[in-house]
Amino acid sequence: MTRAEALPRGAVIGMVGGGQLGRMTSVAAARLGYRMHVLSADADDPAMDVAWRHTRLAAADDAAAVDAFAAAVDVITFETENLDLRLLALLERQAHARPSVAAVRLAGDRRLEKAFLNRIGVPTAPWVEVQGADDIARFVAAHGAAIVKTARAGYDGKGQMRLRDAADAQRVFAALGGVPIIIEAMVPFLREVSVVLARGADGAIAAFDVTENVHRDGILDTSTVPAAMDAATAARAIDAATRVAAGLDYVGLMALEMFVMEGGAVLANEIAPRPHNSGHWTMDACLASQFEQHVRAICGLPLASPARHADAVMTNLIGPEGAAAWDGLVATPGTVAHWYGKTQARPGRKLGHATALRAKG
Amino acid sequence: MTRAEALPRGAVIGMVGGGQLGRMTSVAAARLGYRMHVLSADADDPAMDVAWRHTRLAAADDAAAVDAFAAAVDVITFETENLDLRLLALLERQAHARPSVAAVRLAGDRRLEKAFLNRIGVPTAPWVEVQGADDIARFVAAHGAAIVKTARAGYDGKGQMRLRDAADAQRVFAALGGVPIIIEAMVPFLREVSVVLARGADGAIAAFDVTENVHRDGILDTSTVPAAMDAATAARAIDAATRVAAGLDYVGLMALEMFVMEGGAVLANEIAPRPHNSGHWTMDACLASQFEQHVRAICGLPLASPARHADAVMTNLIGPEGAAAWDGLVATPGTVAHWYGKTQARPGRKLGHATALRAKG
Repeated sequence: MTRAEALPRGAVIGMVGGGQLGRMTSVAAARLGYRMHVLSADADDPAMDVAWRHTRLAAADDAAAVDAFAAAVDVITFETENLDLRLLALLERQAHARPSVAAVRLAGDRRLEKAFLNRIGVPTAPWVEVQGADDIARFVAAHGAAIVKTARAGYDGKGQMRLRDAADAQRVFAALGGVPIIIEAMVPFLREVSVVLARGADGAIAAFDVTENVHRDGILDTSTVPAAMDAATAARAIDAATRVAAGLDYVGLMALEMFVMEGGAVLANEIAPRPHNSGHWTMDACLASQFEQHVRAICGLPLASPARHADAVMTNLIGPEGAAAWDGLVATPGTVAHWYGKTQARPGRKLGHATALRAKG
Repeated sequence: MTRAEALPRGAVIGMVGGGQLGRMTSVAAARLGYRMHVLSADADDPAMDVAWRHTRLAAADDAAAVDAFAAAVDVITFETENLDLRLLALLERQAHARPSVAAVRLAGDRRLEKAFLNRIGVPTAPWVEVQGADDIARFVAAHGAAIVKTARAGYDGKGQMRLRDAADAQRVFAALGGVPIIIEAMVPFLREVSVVLARGADGAIAAFDVTENVHRDGILDTSTVPAAMDAATAARAIDAATRVAAGLDYVGLMALEMFVMEGGAVLANEIAPRPHNSGHWTMDACLASQFEQHVRAICGLPLASPARHADAVMTNLIGPEGAAAWDGLVATPGTVAHWYGKTQARPGRKLGHATALRAKG
């Protein structure tokens, strides 16, 4: 596939991962005439309710599975950046990944990610890589309250510990330091926001409106659009995400999570090289969702307009509490409820989401 | 399943038929947490790109397939009323069909359908069942221009012949009279419209706005909403469809195609006991599409609001000409393009549709 060439209808998108993001991408792909082939450990994964084919990945170093999957699909894409390094190495041998495996690898490692952000001039909270408890103690002495995070495979608040006192450095290092970790200053942000945008193979960019996010227990709880911020701050946020996409020569949909500070500065927090939870409202408030934009970008179609026709508040349905809310949400006019088809409602697990819409304010 | 009981998430919808209506229903089902199991002749049917399971129907009297399918699903539903009588007989042995097999059988036979409409007081164009060429000649002598139609399995203009002159009766009867046929007066209608509505197991009804339809070569070309008609006429159209649904004790989504006459009378033409081509605009102009309403009704969920947030014109993409329009439609802002995943672009075949949206007028 050259940059200028669109995949023909009937082409096959290879999705690494079979969760809800793959599920929603498959639906968007089908509408545009594409079919989805999933690579995952379990043929009963949520995406398989609406996906076309499945290849079972028996282990992260299952080269035969990766090769068979790669040969069966026209483009490889991802629903997560939290991939085992052995799997990343196998995928790196394939030329037809969008976004590039390098971009996914970078987004999956806080050290690479934050170093990249700072290198292209996108500010972050102060951070350093941690080699020992001394690094933690020194950082806390300099910056005050901080969070230690594993460099890889941390998501939804897992693999993170907060501390305020340098005296806690040894304890925190003992708990997390068995793998590469970083420490990051806890910055006094006003709000958390994200920009979800798509970048085409031709460099065209379409950004959805900035979304305001509220986390609870380290997991995204609600995303609201429009975000409560002035136009100049919103423009800064979109500019930061645009520079990230261009800097990675990114193809596909990505999100940049940011902190908005007093005075309007924005600090980048995380890059998601895939459709993102904070963009789920686009499914119901826009003619083309983030999933459609991802499909368009990776298949070489022109990007759709990111305009929205409604204001929206997306609420995640998490664990048994989220499941219990379902019946009421399905009965609420003006709300669109989405279920992910997961068979177990473990606490902390994202089971679905619901988007409440109202006329644009 | 009792009337009051909703199917739990994870339940399986059995769809008789694997075409584009099944395909779009499966996507709506998945969002609400249901899975779709298709019964059709071909495991490569369009619906299977996004459906969960498939049972192959080897022949219309394949009782083993129908029984296995019926046992594997929680509710049976339909994407077409054009079913072989042997298949209908096998399905009639199953208690868990929504709508009822009787309603599907009625809608699939113009004699039963029109007799039912007249019996419940919904006017139609004048018609009679035809036993011989004499019936045709007499009818044309009395009513003028008329259409002879096969009673069953006529769709998209197939199995129909027009005549104006009683002298043509013998020729028309020779061409079509090998199967049960009817003759119907060609009425001088102003426009064709349809009402797409859902009826729940509890009798609740939610009707989408009346849609104006334009056919070309006997195939639906465009559907436009709002239809150009006054409120009283629209109310008559909705009332007719409501009486049909109530009269059939219908559960699910159905459409009633009608002719609007000078002066505002509406004459019923056809009942579609399923999601209908003229309701495709609801996918993009409403929060809950006709497919979602169908799933809600047959699964016992409350019906969603049928309100629309935009005006819409849906255009079918038919045959090679439709396929050729695709690239342009995908690139058109404000238009949502849908492809059905059919592998052959035969003339006259519905390959997809595109809905152009604009702010409500």
